[in-house]
Amino acid sequence: MTDTLVAEPRAQAALHSSFFVERDFPQSPARLFHAFADKEMVRRWRVEDEGCAVHEFAFDFRIGGHEVSRFSFGGGPEIRLDAEFQDIVEDQRIVFTYRMGIGSSPFSASLTTIEFAPHASGTRLSYTEQLAMLDGTDSAAGREEGGRQLLEKLARELDRQG
Amino acid sequence: MTDTLVAEPRAQAALHSSFFVERDFPQSPARLFHAFADKEMVRRWRVEDEGCAVHEFAFDFRIGGHEVSRFSFGGGPEIRLDAEFQDIVEDQRIVFTYRMGIGSSPFSASLTTIEFAPHASGTRLSYTEQLAMLDGTDSAAGREEGGRQLLEKLARELDRQG
Repeated sequence: MTDTLVAEPRAQAALHSSFFVERDFPQSPARLFHAFADKEMVRRWRVEDEGCAVHEFAFDFRIGGHEVSRFSFGGGPEIRLDAEFQDIVEDQRIVFTYRMGIGSSPFSASLTTIEFAPHASGTRLSYTEQLAMLDGTDSAAGREEGGRQLLEKLARELDRQG
Repeated sequence: MTDTLVAEPRAQAALHSSFFVERDFPQSPARLFHAFADKEMVRRWRVEDEGCAVHEFAFDFRIGGHEVSRFSFGGGPEIRLDAEFQDIVEDQRIVFTYRMGIGSSPFSASLTTIEFAPHASGTRLSYTEQLAMLDGTDSAAGREEGGRQLLEKLARELDRQG
């Protein structure tokens, strides 16, 4: 920093990182794509969770369309997710950006690419997230672990459907 | 790839990269922030260019607000940019995502962080772009060079204003 007087407190510098997660599924690319494209399916495996109260879930799956999710865990503060779909190639790829925040303060912004490739008789799913943490916390490792857990939750949901 | 029959042609795999550009300016952080926040100023130094026809420029500078720019170079195809502001800290930071496309086909999606830090009697501007190229071209180097040229254009506009 410098000796210059600054009227406002300085925001934390943004921290940039990225991570990559890959997982194979026995289901077809079309089944996997549907799990990310269908509003009720997305709500079931990705939004709802034990101990999580969902206050809003809007989901407009088209390029330029938005998702809004508002939820809270065990009486904690409301977390808001705002996403925009940036690219959709049926059964092959979904690219979206999203920010997460508490109240009107964003704490992260992300660019996520999910790709579905035929693999053996199923699908190899590739998940790439490029991330800017805005509140000074370097939680990229936690975000990666959260991504892995979500894919396990998705696998259970798909297996349950048979 | 596999032996599985695929009905549709495969999209090119997305290519992920990032780049960082830094430049010092003699003007204050408030002047620099204004150059990215004010619609007419942005139009002047960032959107308009010699040989470029601007067909639309909408700019709603607030968190969750969008920019739409549609333009073409020398009778070429119309290029469309769709941006969303993800974080704004006055005089300090602007985070936005954007996709670029020709017609209804996006060819890139980006997450960009611009930070303004007091430096000597002016400003050190940091520009970080995290990028997914969607059409198989690895043009991250070209995007970085384009970013540098834009900052030079900004410097000329600020110097011109005195």
